[in-house]
Amino acid sequence: MNISHIEHIGIAVKSLEHAIPYYENVLGLKCYAIEEVQDQKVKTAFFQVGETKIELLEATDSESPIAKFIEKRGEGVHHIAFCVNSVTKGLEKMEAAGISLIDKKPRKGAEGLNIAFLHPKSTQGVLTELCEKPE
Amino acid sequence: MNISHIEHIGIAVKSLEHAIPYYENVLGLKCYAIEEVQDQKVKTAFFQVGETKIELLEATDSESPIAKFIEKRGEGVHHIAFCVNSVTKGLEKMEAAGISLIDKKPRKGAEGLNIAFLHPKSTQGVLTELCEKPE
Repeated sequence: MNISHIEHIGIAVKSLEHAIPYYENVLGLKCYAIEEVQDQKVKTAFFQVGETKIELLEATDSESPIAKFIEKRGEGVHHIAFCVNSVTKGLEKMEAAGISLIDKKPRKGAEGLNIAFLHPKSTQGVLTELCEKPE
Repeated sequence: MNISHIEHIGIAVKSLEHAIPYYENVLGLKCYAIEEVQDQKVKTAFFQVGETKIELLEATDSESPIAKFIEKRGEGVHHIAFCVNSVTKGLEKMEAAGISLIDKKPRKGAEGLNIAFLHPKSTQGVLTELCEKPE
């Protein structure tokens, strides 16, 4: 598994409607897409910053992982996603290294990427995502 | 103020000695520098990931902002730093937009960069740093 760059940084916000104007009008970034990921019960807004994206995450349901995160910790950085050449090989390497996996196999995430999450208890508190573009 | 890319992601850890082997041996990144920033009471370890750095931060004193952060929230992402063309102009723009500033003027940070922090209460919970390479 090779990491090429940070694919995105996921940020939990209470309201996209409130957060997007800060990223656009104050930071000067452009929201290029809004997408709902139904199985995660989130609505996401994307901004490109160099080779990395900022992914704002708003819960669409009180049972969403993002709603629970905000309830516990408040708004803020939710996860970091590394772009890798193979999520499957990455997960094999992580498991062999004793890293606790949230996803045992790659699944589909936002923007059609193949993704898998590592548990923050194994990664010094950083919820970590591996992702790759599908072939 | 223009943001070119994410200069680094700051991650608060209890122990560099414990965290560096995860980043090196499991993620496959290389720690290229360790630096102490005395006025922030932190020791930092740097990893390059594409155009962005990961900056691990360990407190060197119980009064360090990093020690307080970990006491309150545990290990995890501490801040995001945007590379801008002018920190001074950025601060002017932020202040005009009503963003709460931690640093009213640029100061020196790790790696000799000119830096300034914005308060997370104005930025949806994300402690945000603006930084530029000195001329």
